[in-house]
Amino acid sequence: MSTLDPLHTSCPAPRRESERVLLGHGSGGQLMSELIDQVILAELGDTGALQDAAVVEIAGTDVIVSTDSFVVTPRIFPGGDIGALAVHGTVNDLAMRGGRPVALALAYVLEEGLPVAELRTITASIARAAAACDVRIVTGDTKVVDRGAADGIYITTTGIGSRLPGADPDATRGRPGDVVLVSGPIGAHGTAILCARGDLGLDSEIRSDTAPLHEMVAAMVAACRGDIHTLRDPTRGGLAGALNELAAESGVGVEIEESAVPVPTAVASTCELLGLDPLHVANEGCLVAFVAPDAAPRALAAMRAFAGGVQATPIGRVTDGPAGRVVVRTLVGSTRLVDMLVGEQLPRIC
Amino acid sequence: MSTLDPLHTSCPAPRRESERVLLGHGSGGQLMSELIDQVILAELGDTGALQDAAVVEIAGTDVIVSTDSFVVTPRIFPGGDIGALAVHGTVNDLAMRGGRPVALALAYVLEEGLPVAELRTITASIARAAAACDVRIVTGDTKVVDRGAADGIYITTTGIGSRLPGADPDATRGRPGDVVLVSGPIGAHGTAILCARGDLGLDSEIRSDTAPLHEMVAAMVAACRGDIHTLRDPTRGGLAGALNELAAESGVGVEIEESAVPVPTAVASTCELLGLDPLHVANEGCLVAFVAPDAAPRALAAMRAFAGGVQATPIGRVTDGPAGRVVVRTLVGSTRLVDMLVGEQLPRIC
Repeated sequence: MSTLDPLHTSCPAPRRESERVLLGHGSGGQLMSELIDQVILAELGDTGALQDAAVVEIAGTDVIVSTDSFVVTPRIFPGGDIGALAVHGTVNDLAMRGGRPVALALAYVLEEGLPVAELRTITASIARAAAACDVRIVTGDTKVVDRGAADGIYITTTGIGSRLPGADPDATRGRPGDVVLVSGPIGAHGTAILCARGDLGLDSEIRSDTAPLHEMVAAMVAACRGDIHTLRDPTRGGLAGALNELAAESGVGVEIEESAVPVPTAVASTCELLGLDPLHVANEGCLVAFVAPDAAPRALAAMRAFAGGVQATPIGRVTDGPAGRVVVRTLVGSTRLVDMLVGEQLPRIC
Repeated sequence: MSTLDPLHTSCPAPRRESERVLLGHGSGGQLMSELIDQVILAELGDTGALQDAAVVEIAGTDVIVSTDSFVVTPRIFPGGDIGALAVHGTVNDLAMRGGRPVALALAYVLEEGLPVAELRTITASIARAAAACDVRIVTGDTKVVDRGAADGIYITTTGIGSRLPGADPDATRGRPGDVVLVSGPIGAHGTAILCARGDLGLDSEIRSDTAPLHEMVAAMVAACRGDIHTLRDPTRGGLAGALNELAAESGVGVEIEESAVPVPTAVASTCELLGLDPLHVANEGCLVAFVAPDAAPRALAAMRAFAGGVQATPIGRVTDGPAGRVVVRTLVGSTRLVDMLVGEQLPRIC
């Protein structure tokens, strides 16, 4: 992620490190990329890009690996719960590197006092989601911390998978001229969580879009092979965050059409009410892809064959720069810069 | 873990499930095995034994996978810190299935307010421990929760590795006649943590034994191949917990000599003062092995070639039953049953 310079300059990012970790450091935005870049990767001595999933060679075989902790609140929300979210999130991270999910490892941190019935409900949800994705839970761990030392349950899922034949999506492979595709409507997960918290007094029918995307990716890869250049699921930081990261990592620009981005009416009106930009709101069941122009129609057809992809659509183009710059052409024909969030918009969204 | 009947009867364990999660559910003892068996595995529909690490076939290659969350308090203690512990713990779990560690995935849950300097220190410790074990951190995740929703930092490490040629240690492979070996003194980690908490007013020189064991295991496997029947690192629940689990999973009995179990004087006196049994105290840098009798001298020689194995020693024998029963022959010649802990002895030990 050393290419992830949030200020889009060629100077090294300044060491504006706060003395303490802030909620905004978990936002998927600029603060988070600074923490990862300047503290975590600096200490780990990482020299390459840290992507959603890694490819590791084990005895000559490519194994795709991804890990994610889930701390969402509330734990049960319209359209899903922390358990299903954990399975889908990890399955999707594997898929974004062209992985076919095979197995999951499951680690719980439980707070003393969590109702056992709720643990049972969440575990059953994990089992259903894993079965639906045809992945096995192969190993796990359970820790219990004292009251007040956690908030109910945190779940860390780690997935391992095999590489889909011909697949090579990589955050660095975006090329000028690529078509930018999204697989479906954006903004549902973040707004559903926000409404479910109840403190805004919003009554909404919005449901999280949490869903696995590995079968859609397998169909896209089967149709387009290596012409699928990049894939990302725009979770924390939303579509804007994902496009900024991909643009920076590929060293390209991105231009999208505001009118082409599918935003459900309920999401748009909730965002308007709350002063949120749907481009910054988290998603858990859609993906954004940079695809070679010739292959884009085949990729779209493959996506649209899935229930979660019927609204798949092109939203813009990869340009030759400036590197890392994402602009949106607005409804009135002007363009504006789409940046990553600086701090925190919606904490504990996943 | 369906064989892990903590009551050592052939009846199904009773459903005495408490309504809420208790600290004792994280103890590595009977309450924990009941929670895992009756709630988690019951909902996951698991049919096999869930061991420290799993073997997963990816495109025809055996991949060893293990995951663990670390919630130890204090985060920095004599002999180590949560970061090094997380690396060693996961490396050791891979080794206990005959794995050569290759890569780690690293997931942080950070509490808002954690000093960035401490995050830096812990991350640096992870980097050093991983480099010393020759494993790469290949992917990661960082979540931030609000103040009071965690306790500083929780770390989940997941390791993947390849299978050492000829290695097939498995919790179910213990056979009557096997020699029971331990690689070194027991009880240091748990007592070090307890003294480091400071609330007992104990001033002690005991340091955690946290250390990687994968090279020792590789040497044991090279010397004895498949004659290394079972391996386990006796962490939560201590040596007693590990022996009970292995005896149950292998359907054998175990008899150990109290006088043969290496307990450092400082550990023994601290345990005496606190009313703890060293057999129940956690370890993070030693292993227990069931080894075919002919191979035991070779295994011991291999262990003793390592700094952490100079005190490796036989402590007893695997017997033909009753299945799951562990007895210790005391210094005065009598025998007593060594059970798992029922509830919690030392919470948040790892």
